[in-house]
Amino acid sequence: MRPFVGTQGEGNTYPGPSAPFGMVQLGPDTEKELWETASGYEYSDPTIMGFSLTHLSGTGIPDLGDFLFVPQVGEPKFVSGTKTDPDSGYQSRYSHDEETASAGYYKVKLQKSGVTVELTAGERAGMMRMTFPASDDASILTDLTHVLNGKKWKVIWSHLRVEDNSTITGFHLVNGWAKERALYFAARYSKPFDKAEILSDGKPVVYNTYRFRSEKEATGTNLQFLAHYKTGDRQTIVIKVAVSAISAENALKNLDTEIHDWNFEKVREQTRTKWDKELARIEIEGSREEKETFYTSLYHAFLAPSLYQDVTGEYRGLDQNIHQAKGFTNYTIFSLWDTYRATHPLFALIQAPRDADMINSMLAHYDQSVEHMLPIWSLQANETWCMVGYHAVPVIVDAYLKGVPGINRDRAYDAIKTTATNPRYDNVATYAKLGWVPFDKENESVSKTLEYAYDDYCIARMAKALGKRDDFAVFSKRAASYKNLFDPSVGLMRGKDSQGKWHTPFNPHFYDETAGVNDFTEGTSWQYSWYVPHDVPGLMALMGGREAFAKKLDDLFTFKEADKSKGVSDIQGRIGEYWHGNEPSHHVIYLYSYAGQPWKAAERLHEIVTTQYGNKPNSLSGNDDCGQMSAWYMFTCLGFYPVCPGSDYYAIGAPQLRKAKLNLSNGKKFTTIANNLSAENIYVQSVEVNGKRLDNPFLSFGEVKNGGTLIFNMGPRPSQWGTQPKIPE
Amino acid sequence: MRPFVGTQGEGNTYPGPSAPFGMVQLGPDTEKELWETASGYEYSDPTIMGFSLTHLSGTGIPDLGDFLFVPQVGEPKFVSGTKTDPDSGYQSRYSHDEETASAGYYKVKLQKSGVTVELTAGERAGMMRMTFPASDDASILTDLTHVLNGKKWKVIWSHLRVEDNSTITGFHLVNGWAKERALYFAARYSKPFDKAEILSDGKPVVYNTYRFRSEKEATGTNLQFLAHYKTGDRQTIVIKVAVSAISAENALKNLDTEIHDWNFEKVREQTRTKWDKELARIEIEGSREEKETFYTSLYHAFLAPSLYQDVTGEYRGLDQNIHQAKGFTNYTIFSLWDTYRATHPLFALIQAPRDADMINSMLAHYDQSVEHMLPIWSLQANETWCMVGYHAVPVIVDAYLKGVPGINRDRAYDAIKTTATNPRYDNVATYAKLGWVPFDKENESVSKTLEYAYDDYCIARMAKALGKRDDFAVFSKRAASYKNLFDPSVGLMRGKDSQGKWHTPFNPHFYDETAGVNDFTEGTSWQYSWYVPHDVPGLMALMGGREAFAKKLDDLFTFKEADKSKGVSDIQGRIGEYWHGNEPSHHVIYLYSYAGQPWKAAERLHEIVTTQYGNKPNSLSGNDDCGQMSAWYMFTCLGFYPVCPGSDYYAIGAPQLRKAKLNLSNGKKFTTIANNLSAENIYVQSVEVNGKRLDNPFLSFGEVKNGGTLIFNMGPRPSQWGTQPKIPE
Repeated sequence: MRPFVGTQGEGNTYPGPSAPFGMVQLGPDTEKELWETASGYEYSDPTIMGFSLTHLSGTGIPDLGDFLFVPQVGEPKFVSGTKTDPDSGYQSRYSHDEETASAGYYKVKLQKSGVTVELTAGERAGMMRMTFPASDDASILTDLTHVLNGKKWKVIWSHLRVEDNSTITGFHLVNGWAKERALYFAARYSKPFDKAEILSDGKPVVYNTYRFRSEKEATGTNLQFLAHYKTGDRQTIVIKVAVSAISAENALKNLDTEIHDWNFEKVREQTRTKWDKELARIEIEGSREEKETFYTSLYHAFLAPSLYQDVTGEYRGLDQNIHQAKGFTNYTIFSLWDTYRATHPLFALIQAPRDADMINSMLAHYDQSVEHMLPIWSLQANETWCMVGYHAVPVIVDAYLKGVPGINRDRAYDAIKTTATNPRYDNVATYAKLGWVPFDKENESVSKTLEYAYDDYCIARMAKALGKRDDFAVFSKRAASYKNLFDPSVGLMRGKDSQGKWHTPFNPHFYDETAGVNDFTEGTSWQYSWYVPHDVPGLMALMGGREAFAKKLDDLFTFKEADKSKGVSDIQGRIGEYWHGNEPSHHVIYLYSYAGQPWKAAERLHEIVTTQYGNKPNSLSGNDDCGQMSAWYMFTCLGFYPVCPGSDYYAIGAPQLRKAKLNLSNGKKFTTIANNLSAENIYVQSVEVNGKRLDNPFLSFGEVKNGGTLIFNMGPRPSQWGTQPKIPE
Repeated sequence: MRPFVGTQGEGNTYPGPSAPFGMVQLGPDTEKELWETASGYEYSDPTIMGFSLTHLSGTGIPDLGDFLFVPQVGEPKFVSGTKTDPDSGYQSRYSHDEETASAGYYKVKLQKSGVTVELTAGERAGMMRMTFPASDDASILTDLTHVLNGKKWKVIWSHLRVEDNSTITGFHLVNGWAKERALYFAARYSKPFDKAEILSDGKPVVYNTYRFRSEKEATGTNLQFLAHYKTGDRQTIVIKVAVSAISAENALKNLDTEIHDWNFEKVREQTRTKWDKELARIEIEGSREEKETFYTSLYHAFLAPSLYQDVTGEYRGLDQNIHQAKGFTNYTIFSLWDTYRATHPLFALIQAPRDADMINSMLAHYDQSVEHMLPIWSLQANETWCMVGYHAVPVIVDAYLKGVPGINRDRAYDAIKTTATNPRYDNVATYAKLGWVPFDKENESVSKTLEYAYDDYCIARMAKALGKRDDFAVFSKRAASYKNLFDPSVGLMRGKDSQGKWHTPFNPHFYDETAGVNDFTEGTSWQYSWYVPHDVPGLMALMGGREAFAKKLDDLFTFKEADKSKGVSDIQGRIGEYWHGNEPSHHVIYLYSYAGQPWKAAERLHEIVTTQYGNKPNSLSGNDDCGQMSAWYMFTCLGFYPVCPGSDYYAIGAPQLRKAKLNLSNGKKFTTIANNLSAENIYVQSVEVNGKRLDNPFLSFGEVKNGGTLIFNMGPRPSQWGTQPKIPE
């Protein structure tokens, strides 16, 4: 497991420790202003600013990075300085040679101060162990103004209290990606402060002998705390830290409930043990690089959504009220436009209890939503409304239909239907009426139409399961809406206005993510025209049949035009106009299996797995997006992929691992074996599932759920296997 | 009862409705920027901005005024406009002829819109009844940016939610006199909105078709809500409103628990009944003007401290954590430098259960204080540290020694002693060591020394009662510290530095409230030199004996020099250098009784009662200061005054009412009768208490507590009565 994977370039992961799905993610921040370094850490950066308590994994937009701790020796600095001139502030050069990271552990030596910092994290609380050189002027700064702000977000307000001679608590309210995010923290220090100093706007908070002012607390927009120490050589100071979205009191409760003493190694060991247990949910055979890559992927998939509930059971709801979680554990950070694709389908198999908790968290969000909507992209009691569609729907429908226990079907269905029929949301009402989202009324109209149609297919599936015939008819009809935006004259999806006129002029390779100028969401027509996961036969028919469809797929991998477009720099992993670095492409290669050309899928999948993943910091070609890039990789390695979550089947691609065992949440084991797999033997020759020959390149959930074995026989050349597909309904 | 008393000039009271000690104080605001209009309403102002939910009564510093509601007709305005050009904004001219106020009720007609607004208030929730003319463009604005800001305070952040078609909730965080004050509100409208519109920075919150944005909620620094209506002639729209310091959910709970229907008259009647009950705690005989003046005073004394606890029992503590009040009801707004003098001593007699709740609220504050201090001037989960001393001490000691039930003596004593020995607070430690606060180390050093000394006397009294001999000795010694600052060469109190040198040059009439320039707190040496309430014989001795003391008192009433000083404009009620408009003078007239010249007290008391109090808007000569000006008046009318709370006695002055009955909290009745009292017969001729002749001009608590009668016989000329005083210990 390599926490550094994805920290260099576009992956936007962080190397610091977190418990599985934990509430705190301690870690080093090298950057806070660049949009491209949304997680706060870029492996190529030469300096570390300090160590903050929370991080987003793989998102494209920065936020969190709450409460920075910075050990210093000598005259303390109160501004961060710059990468090129770290001595102008508190940031420090460091070397990757003196930096290590593993599950639940991170260590680095700061060259400026000579302080070695080690981090570990439990669920809601973590520890920092700082080993100082001998100094009369050692100090540890806590900067409440630090957040991963992308130059755009800001700390609106904060307060700070010195609770006793070795404890502080604090709070800040951040107007960030999450528009109004309150977070509290508590920190207990193993060594009493020699002197405790609060700074407001860089100046010590002192009593001026007019009206009393306590030096033990302050409020304001720019607060810092400085713990002064005299240290001996190699003296360690341990800081226990915890957060809460509720109160300083709860942050202290979280801290004191989870960490009882100053034993750093104990917490580290507990978290490592938790990771060992979680990562054992899939057991694989492979090379060291394959194992490192795979388990890092599993690790990344198990970082988010993250716990968002105090030890008291309280959590801050979307309505900003304090709720008591009853019958579930509350989670936040739902990057659903990404994670509905493969992350949640993976959870439905091997993290079913947590998937149910997450779904129940989404239902609570729905209850608290002023729009009565399930989350779109929720972040610590905020709805960012990021991206399009209503993809909580496939997550819930997929889990429900796959038998994930703990979901109240009627409550879930109500939420799903209400969400999908909100007359205010993104022209859903117009879509329901016209059959498409008109580009003259709504931006990203084509993507929205296509994604609604897929989500509506999921609703129809659940309606059918619940015997709701009318709803089944309504949503089945909506699910076919994609047909309305297919322009046969260009053979692609194209914007249509409310009068039914095509968007002209039309450039099928046009990409621009500037607000309000495009009919597509982070994509081109050529990329989005494949987005009918629930009715590939229907799409094929529009495109002129299976052969024409396959030919068109080939073309996708050769275009280059959109590369020059505006705003695409953070999406890499390009093969022609197939851009693996972003989610709209993720299901596309598997469409070759639908088209009867699984060997082409095998080639592309192998290419991507070997060139766009790996065990290096720069191995990820795009934002990991809370685990979606990683989940794609894992399914692909296993040989199958949930092209259409909510349906009963997976598409079979080509396995990339000799053997893997899924320890399903129901206690069954499902094993995949790829006989003769090698760098040359990448083509599937034949398949057998649970002892029966499988010629159709689709695997049904029924073949997985009770455990069993999926055996691939691999060879060096394309075979006839899978060339006569019968696409399941 | 005349709620307008004190609304014109320096009184700083508000005319809007509040339940006794209630959490909401609905009322009209005519002003938000002027420091001099701290309550938001100045009777002389020609315009009303709107109606906000909370107000401070009689303070010298503005704050609160949360959440302004403004009915409008025609094109709505979103800025307030000015008094001289109200049409540039939403404020409106009005006429006092179309304005009425009584206990629990306020009514005004806004001339601009023709809307009549009526207000009533329960404990935590109130109602607004707005009667509109016929209009297609009627609306009600709610302005979350409105606070009584004195140009200095600001709304740091806010949010707003349209919960349903007739309910909104909201929040703002205010950096005001209270540095970090969070307040939530909820409002339910009797008529569903024709259209609900949120405005941010004056612009409607609308979805721009890029990333979805709900039009039903917003966050930001400048939020307003506009409820649009089409109204018929004389159509009434009723709004139920409530606040909470905890959450929108609690604001709704407060609202729905307290007000069940749309019956405005019912709430008005309930609150009127509550006031009838509270005001009946003192029954008086007198002219209509006397009754109106007296009961308005009682009303003002019963507005603050105010309830600060939701119907759930939760309240926001000084540590910003949410606490559950156990065994007491939580109150806030402790203007203790003012109210320890006469307001709390009055409460100890006739509001004992509430006084105990207030004291238990102070003890909770102490528990939550990072400085481990009792409140100095606390305001909605904030300590403003306003003024000097630690006057929670006399409040607690007075209540404890007077047998107010419900105070844990050990807990109270610990809090008192810890507060009085905080080594960081206002050079208390230096004072304890040197015997005075040195002016070279601390501003307002003389006032602080004198007030500490008095507070320490109270601590010594309680230590004695608790058998703590060592503490009794320590605090008794501290209580004599006043002697160290009496300069015999000038016969007055004077600043002394840490080397023991007098502050030179010395101007005994110097007044300047600019930070850091004065040895006195809102006063001159001549005013503060009388501040030894606990040892008047000691002070007399320093001043050369009783005769010299009395002569010096005479001088006080003739000086004029300090009038010209800086920053004294808001203190009026001047008779020479005796300024009744501010608290340092309040006990001074009664010192004539100590000096054997009670007839002089009688003259001055009569003068002040008849010229500086009354039933008119401009009747108050200074800030009412949460009831202290009013409590002075009531005690004075009764004929006695708590010159030294914490002691066992009151000083007798001269009664100003023919008859009054105190319904003591222990169920006993104590009646004062002034035989022959008239405009001419202002001098006490003889006194009888509980059937016994009383020649010494002091009344012991023992003579009051079991009920009884205090009879004064009044005459047109000074008598020998009280001229041979024996000052009680």
